Amino acid sequence: MASAEYDLIIVGGGPAGLTAGLYAARAMLKAVLVEKGAVGGQVLLTDWIDNYPGFPEGISGFELIDKMAAQASRFGLETKLGSVTAMDLKGTVKRLQLEDGSELTAKSVIIATGAHPKQLGVPGEVELTGKGVSYCATCDGPFYRNQEVAVIGGGNTAVEEAVYLTRFADKVTVIHRRNELRATKIIQQHAFANDKVHFILDTQVERIVGKDGVEGLQLKKNNGEESFLPVYGVFMLIGTAPNNEMLPLDDLNADPYGFIPTDGEMRTSLPGVMAVGDIRSKAVRQVVNAAGEGAVAVLAAEEYLHQLG
Amino acid sequence: MASAEYDLIIVGGGPAGLTAGLYAARAMLKAVLVEKGAVGGQVLLTDWIDNYPGFPEGISGFELIDKMAAQASRFGLETKLGSVTAMDLKGTVKRLQLEDGSELTAKSVIIATGAHPKQLGVPGEVELTGKGVSYCATCDGPFYRNQEVAVIGGGNTAVEEAVYLTRFADKVTVIHRRNELRATKIIQQHAFANDKVHFILDTQVERIVGKDGVEGLQLKKNNGEESFLPVYGVFMLIGTAPNNEMLPLDDLNADPYGFIPTDGEMRTSLPGVMAVGDIRSKAVRQVVNAAGEGAVAVLAAEEYLHQLG
Repeated sequence: MASAEYDLIIVGGGPAGLTAGLYAARAMLKAVLVEKGAVGGQVLLTDWIDNYPGFPEGISGFELIDKMAAQASRFGLETKLGSVTAMDLKGTVKRLQLEDGSELTAKSVIIATGAHPKQLGVPGEVELTGKGVSYCATCDGPFYRNQEVAVIGGGNTAVEEAVYLTRFADKVTVIHRRNELRATKIIQQHAFANDKVHFILDTQVERIVGKDGVEGLQLKKNNGEESFLPVYGVFMLIGTAPNNEMLPLDDLNADPYGFIPTDGEMRTSLPGVMAVGDIRSKAVRQVVNAAGEGAVAVLAAEEYLHQLG
Repeated sequence: MASAEYDLIIVGGGPAGLTAGLYAARAMLKAVLVEKGAVGGQVLLTDWIDNYPGFPEGISGFELIDKMAAQASRFGLETKLGSVTAMDLKGTVKRLQLEDGSELTAKSVIIATGAHPKQLGVPGEVELTGKGVSYCATCDGPFYRNQEVAVIGGGNTAVEEAVYLTRFADKVTVIHRRNELRATKIIQQHAFANDKVHFILDTQVERIVGKDGVEGLQLKKNNGEESFLPVYGVFMLIGTAPNNEMLPLDDLNADPYGFIPTDGEMRTSLPGVMAVGDIRSKAVRQVVNAAGEGAVAVLAAEEYLHQLG
């Protein structure tokens, strides 16, 4: 049998991957965490985190990641900078190809590649990103003091962030393509009670208008009626897409959206391969449950390695 | 329809319950957390926690709980001191009986009652608890500097803690009733490599001997052979039992050990009833995954409340 270099490779350095790294290092597994850029993941898009338990006054996304990384390092976690381009996960030796042409091999793998905000895909979106088009209300909201802005989307995130944005903006218009919101009732009620939040339903964005910055949105109602909404900023909050380009989706039985299903111990359909955090097929994507999943996956990896003998 | 006093009652104030409380309060649910004693749960048995992500140098169990409680309070979580003696969870109005004769009602319930270390059930155990009999190596280990101690059990916790105890004790003898350990291989190897750790397998403890403190253990090998092992302390690390006296176990489809099964969103078999943390039927019981489950359960509760209308 070909031998593997590592007991465990963790792919991705957000809260799920870093917690897996902490547990793996502390368990003295021969493990490496591979991250293509800086550690952190989507948390770094979040300016301030109020709901990670243990920080009564909240903590910045950057600082929390910094602490998680320091903790994993303290137990000797090896990390490697590199972009994984392909994975062969079916055999007892798992093989990961890196962009620089090198290969890493391991007996087990934890996939923690995360997810990213979806793009709407309309003209003007790419050109005006960072110039009025944003994917993160907490990051960019404060730039829109006393301005009028729009939020695209109708789910929990869109409606919650619309309310959040009223801390800064004078008027926030939520634009949703369906004729009712998907957000939970309590979140909706909260938004309805806020007179700075307005709704345009049953309507799609045709194009984002502006040259050096967003000037407004060309809208089309589902009955064909067109209109123009002047806004200074627009927040695209239409959901999350998996970072799965490098994953063998068929082997992993990916769900229709490209997320990876697991059992309660984070095991995928492939022996020795676990998935944790936002890449998992699941309902709730929060920092604390991503971290919890990282811990669970390492114990599943240890169990698997034990079976391997 | 009879109306319920609360949207959500959380029973238990360990990391899982407190995180549920934080999420519920932040979501502005009409929620109350009921705890029979001080908040904290089993974490308080742990002197120092090295693997809760976000605290690079570790944190004491007490301080972590204190921070979690302060964070939930900051968002206005209502807490109530009281011991729940019975629950009727089948209807749309959930009814909880308290020891003082009062009743609390809610539309949904999160069970976070936790678990506790198992007793061995041998003569001398109860009498000598706190006088040499301990259920928590991290709590009491430092009392046994340069002494000889025993650990009862053969699972991960027992073998890991045996190694940990060698930081203090001169000799640690692991006594296990079976002829092989249940601990994962890596944990076993770590223990085998430590010359202060000794093993007596295939052997049961008959009685704990001592008057004002532990003096030794009367042992019996499974072949009938008897012996006496002089030790100054003994750690009972034979597993965890659920805190489930107040739960309707049949309605909740409890597993054979009395833990509560749930789906990935922490929903039990009863609509509107979630279970989180150590009371859940699961493989991994760590602070960070208990906390993650608390967050997930509140989003499941919100979804349920939304369906109720």
